[in-house]
Amino acid sequence: MKQIQKILIVGGVAGGASAAARLRRLSESAEIIMFERDEFISFANCGLPYYIGGEITEKSALILQTPQSFKLRYNIDVRVCHEVVAINCNAKTVSVKNGQTNEIYTEGYDKLILSPGAKPICPDQFQSEHTFTIRNISDTYRVKEFLDTKKPQHAVIIGGGYTGLEMAENLHRAGLEVVIVQRNNYVLTTLDYDMACDVHRHIESKGVRLLLNHEVQSFTKQGDRLNVALNLDGEIVTDMIIVAAGVQPDSSLAQNAGLNLTSCGAIVVSETMQTSDPNIYAIGDAVSAVNYVTEQPDYIPLAGPANKQGRIAADQICGIDSRYFGTQSSAILRVFDMTVASTGINETVAKKNELNYEKVFLWSTDHAGYYPGATNMLIKVIFERKTGKLFGAQIVGYGGVDKRCDVIAAAIHGKMTAYDLAKFELCYAPPYSSAKDPVNMAGFVIENILTGKVKIFHWHDIAELQKSDDVILLDVRTLVEFDNGAIGSFINIPVDELRGRLNELDKTKKIYVMCQSGVRSYAATRILVQNNFDAYNLSGGYRLWRSIFGAKTKRNK
Amino acid sequence: MKQIQKILIVGGVAGGASAAARLRRLSESAEIIMFERDEFISFANCGLPYYIGGEITEKSALILQTPQSFKLRYNIDVRVCHEVVAINCNAKTVSVKNGQTNEIYTEGYDKLILSPGAKPICPDQFQSEHTFTIRNISDTYRVKEFLDTKKPQHAVIIGGGYTGLEMAENLHRAGLEVVIVQRNNYVLTTLDYDMACDVHRHIESKGVRLLLNHEVQSFTKQGDRLNVALNLDGEIVTDMIIVAAGVQPDSSLAQNAGLNLTSCGAIVVSETMQTSDPNIYAIGDAVSAVNYVTEQPDYIPLAGPANKQGRIAADQICGIDSRYFGTQSSAILRVFDMTVASTGINETVAKKNELNYEKVFLWSTDHAGYYPGATNMLIKVIFERKTGKLFGAQIVGYGGVDKRCDVIAAAIHGKMTAYDLAKFELCYAPPYSSAKDPVNMAGFVIENILTGKVKIFHWHDIAELQKSDDVILLDVRTLVEFDNGAIGSFINIPVDELRGRLNELDKTKKIYVMCQSGVRSYAATRILVQNNFDAYNLSGGYRLWRSIFGAKTKRNK
Repeated sequence: MKQIQKILIVGGVAGGASAAARLRRLSESAEIIMFERDEFISFANCGLPYYIGGEITEKSALILQTPQSFKLRYNIDVRVCHEVVAINCNAKTVSVKNGQTNEIYTEGYDKLILSPGAKPICPDQFQSEHTFTIRNISDTYRVKEFLDTKKPQHAVIIGGGYTGLEMAENLHRAGLEVVIVQRNNYVLTTLDYDMACDVHRHIESKGVRLLLNHEVQSFTKQGDRLNVALNLDGEIVTDMIIVAAGVQPDSSLAQNAGLNLTSCGAIVVSETMQTSDPNIYAIGDAVSAVNYVTEQPDYIPLAGPANKQGRIAADQICGIDSRYFGTQSSAILRVFDMTVASTGINETVAKKNELNYEKVFLWSTDHAGYYPGATNMLIKVIFERKTGKLFGAQIVGYGGVDKRCDVIAAAIHGKMTAYDLAKFELCYAPPYSSAKDPVNMAGFVIENILTGKVKIFHWHDIAELQKSDDVILLDVRTLVEFDNGAIGSFINIPVDELRGRLNELDKTKKIYVMCQSGVRSYAATRILVQNNFDAYNLSGGYRLWRSIFGAKTKRNK
Repeated sequence: MKQIQKILIVGGVAGGASAAARLRRLSESAEIIMFERDEFISFANCGLPYYIGGEITEKSALILQTPQSFKLRYNIDVRVCHEVVAINCNAKTVSVKNGQTNEIYTEGYDKLILSPGAKPICPDQFQSEHTFTIRNISDTYRVKEFLDTKKPQHAVIIGGGYTGLEMAENLHRAGLEVVIVQRNNYVLTTLDYDMACDVHRHIESKGVRLLLNHEVQSFTKQGDRLNVALNLDGEIVTDMIIVAAGVQPDSSLAQNAGLNLTSCGAIVVSETMQTSDPNIYAIGDAVSAVNYVTEQPDYIPLAGPANKQGRIAADQICGIDSRYFGTQSSAILRVFDMTVASTGINETVAKKNELNYEKVFLWSTDHAGYYPGATNMLIKVIFERKTGKLFGAQIVGYGGVDKRCDVIAAAIHGKMTAYDLAKFELCYAPPYSSAKDPVNMAGFVIENILTGKVKIFHWHDIAELQKSDDVILLDVRTLVEFDNGAIGSFINIPVDELRGRLNELDKTKKIYVMCQSGVRSYAATRILVQNNFDAYNLSGGYRLWRSIFGAKTKRNK
C-alpha cells in the first residue's frame, strides 16, 4: 500500500463520503480532511422529497453520518460549513473559507478529491421566497417549513424529470394541488415518448395536472399568491414554484483552478477518476463519464455511480488500480403506484449515435397470471439489429419492474445479447414470476426477429400504412375486442379462424398484423408467412397504440 | 425449414405444451399429436398448492389451455385421457391406450417428444384414502374435496422441500394445524443449513410445528383419524398426510423402450434434447441435465428449464440448432411472509465436487434504510477462491429477495465474477434499493477477500477458537449490544474506541473480530491489520450466529 500523507476531500455527500471511508479502511496513516460547505455531510439526497411528502417522518432519518460519527469511526477530520473557494494546483493547496468566522485559510494536500455535486438549473428571475429547488437538507427544510407555516394550497412544478415527478407526488401527498409544467412533449426524458404515455395517464389519474409542451415564462406576486405566465394557455395562480428543470455540474471551483471541463461544464476525468491534474481526482455529479453503451463522453449524474467513483478514487490514491468504465444510466422512479425504470440507452440516444438498432415492445405480467395480483408491465428493449447486443431497456408497470430492469442491467454490463435474455434461468414461483419470465419473453421476441422468424412494424408506421392501398391491415383479435375499439383501416379475422380464411387475403399485398399485445399476431404472422404471405407483426399491439394515442378510436366500418 | 411429417408428444404440461406451440409456429405443415394420460393439459402445476389454500379461488384459473383452445390456435390434435404405454423405436410407433374405451392403438411418428414429468416418491405403505400427493389437477381436487367434505383439523406433511412447505403454508391458511416431518436437519435442501435456520424460526412463528431429523415410519387408522408413528418422539394423531418427500423421473416408458437412463432413472439427453434414440427427444422433469455450474450430470426438475427444453426440442426437430447448456438451479419459494431464493450451487454441492470455494454471508436492507418498510435479507454467495467466479447464491429475507437472486442468476449465466457484482449499475431510488445495492455489497465484500484486504472466518470456526488460548476473540459492537447478548469468550472493545485501545491487545495472538453483521468488524479488522495485527472478520456477524444457534447466549463474564 502506498504511503500517503495528506488527502483533502471537497464535498461530504455520496461520492465524497464513500471516498473518505474507503480511504481510511485502506490507510490508517493518511491524514484525511473532508470539507463540506453546508451543515450536513452524508445525507440521504434521494430521500429529500419523501421527507417533504411526509413518508419519511424523522428529520434524523435523512442524516446518515455526522462529523462526529465520521471522526469516531474513520478518524476523519470533517469540517462542515467550510467551503473550499480556490485550488492552487502548483502549490498543491486549497483556500478554505470558514463559514462561521468568514476567515480564509490555506490547507496543503498530496491528493485532492473533488466531489462538489450538481446544482439545480434555476435562472435568476426564478429566485424568490416562493420558489424552491431541492438540492440539499437546507432546501428541504425550507420547503417543509413553507408547507408547515404558509399552508400553501397549490404548487407549480417546473420540469417533469425525476425530481419534478417526485416532488409532484410528494406535494400531492402533502395535500396540495399540483401542476407540472414540462417543456418537452413527454416527462422523464430518460424514456422515449412511446414509453411515457402511460405515465402521463397515471399522473393525471391521480389529479395532478400535466402541461406538456409548456414553459413558465415569468411570474408575478399578487398578494400572497403568484401569477405564473406560461408560453401557452395563459396563467396559473399558485402558492409556490418548485424549479426542477434539471441540474448542471457544480464545477466552478475546478474551472477556476484550470482543470479541463467538457462543453457542458462537467469535469473531465479518466478511468482512474483523475482530472487533467493527476493529483486531483473528481467524482460524482460534477464529472463527465463515458456512456457505457455508446462509449461516448456523457453527463449522467446518478447516486450509484457517484458512490462507486468515490471508492475508485480512494483505491487509486492508495495504489490499487480500480477503474471506472462508464455509466450505464440505470435509473428508477416510483410515480404514485407506478414504477418506471430504465437502463442503457433509449431510442433517442441510439438514433443520435446512428446505431443500427431495432426495438421491441412487449407486455408481460409480473407474475403468473393465475396467481392473484398480477399486473402488466410494458417493456421496450433496444438492441443491435444484426447481433442482438443489448443497448437499453425501459420498463413501465406496477410490480416487478425494478427486478426485470436490474436483470437487463446486469446483461448490459456483461455485454450480453438478447439470446442471453432468452436463456437466463430466473427464479420462478407463482408469486414472483412465470416459468417464462418477462425477461425471457423479451429474449424470445427478439430472437425470433434476429433469426428471421418474424418481421415487425411499429406504432409509428401505422399512419403511413393507412394511406396505402397495397397493404392489408389485419387485426386478429376476437370480434368482441375488435368491436370494443380498433385502429382505423384494420380488418378483423380472429387468429383462431385465420387458417380457414386465408383465401380472403390477397397474396400480392403485404399484410400488417396486430392483436392486443403482439402474441396472437405473432402466431398469426407465422401462419401467414408459412402460407407464403409477406406478413409483419405490430410490436406491442393495440395496447401500446392505445397507450400512445389515448382513447380508443372508432373502427372504420 | 426442414419438412417434418408427423410429431408425437407424450405429456401435455409445461415442456410438452411449450414444444407443441413452438413446433406449430415453426411448421404449419407438420402433423402434431399430443397425448396426455390425464384429463387436463397445460395446467398451472406450480399453482396447485395455492388453490388448496384458497389464494387461487377459481378452478378455471389453473387451466391455462384446453384441448379445444390448442386445436384452434395451434391446429394440434390433443388427446387427453390417452396414455402412451409403449414405444417401438425400430418401427417408430407408439402404443396408445384410450382411457375412455381402454382400447389400445398404434400411432407412427417421424419424431417423438417425451415430456412425462416427475412423480412424487410415495412408498406403497403410504397409499391410503388419508394420504395425498400433489402432482396434478386430479390430486389437487382430491385434497380440496377432502378439506371441504371431511373438514380435517390436522395434517402431517412428510418432507420439508418446496412442495412440503407450500402445502404447509396453504393448509395452515385453510385453517388446519400442521406438522412438518423432515428427515434432514433442515428444510429446503437447495439451501445450506446455515441459511435455513431463519426459515425454521419463521415457520414455527406461524404456529406450524417443525420436526427436523424425524421420519414417519408408519401410520394406522384409528376411527376417522390416523396415528402416525415417528422414528423419534412417539406418535402424532392427525387427519391427513401429505407425502411431499421428493420426486423421481417418470421414466418407465423410456426405460421400457430401451432408452438410456441415469442411475437415478432420469432420461439421458444431449444438448439437443435427443435421447439415445435420435428420433426421440425428452424434456422436462423426466430428464437428466448438466449442472450449469459444476458441468456434471444432475437431476434438477424445474418449470423454467422444462419450458425452455420444450422450445429447444421443437427448434431441433425443425432444423434450428438451439441447444440446452445446463440447468442453473434457480429456485424461489414464498414461506409465509418470507422469501427464500437460490441460484447456482450451494456449499454442500461445492464440497461434494471438491471445488476450491469460499463463501461470504452478508446482511443488507432491501431498500434505503431511511425509507419506510426496509427489511433485512441474508445473502450467502459461494465463489471460486482464486478467481471470484460465482458458483451460487442463497438469499433469505422479506422484500427484494427475488430481484437480487435473479441479478446474480444472470451473472452466473454470464460466467461472471464477484468483481462484476461490485460493478453492476443497478436501478436506485429509495423505495427500491440503496445507492450500493445488496448485490454490489456482496461484490465489495468478496473483492476485499480476493484482493487480500481482509481475511474472514465463519460461524462454524467459533467452537474450535473458543478452546484456544492463542487467539483473541473480539466483539467490536457497543457495550449495550454486547450486554444484550454475545458469544462466549469474546471480549468487547467497540470499534469506535479501538484505535485508542490497541495496547490492550496482544500482538502475538491472532484476533478474531465480530460485530452485529460484519460491517463494523470489517472496519475494525482493517484498523488491526494496518497496525500489524493478524486479524480475521466474522462473515455474517452475530446476527448470523444467533440465527443458527438460536436464542442469545449469556456472555462469558
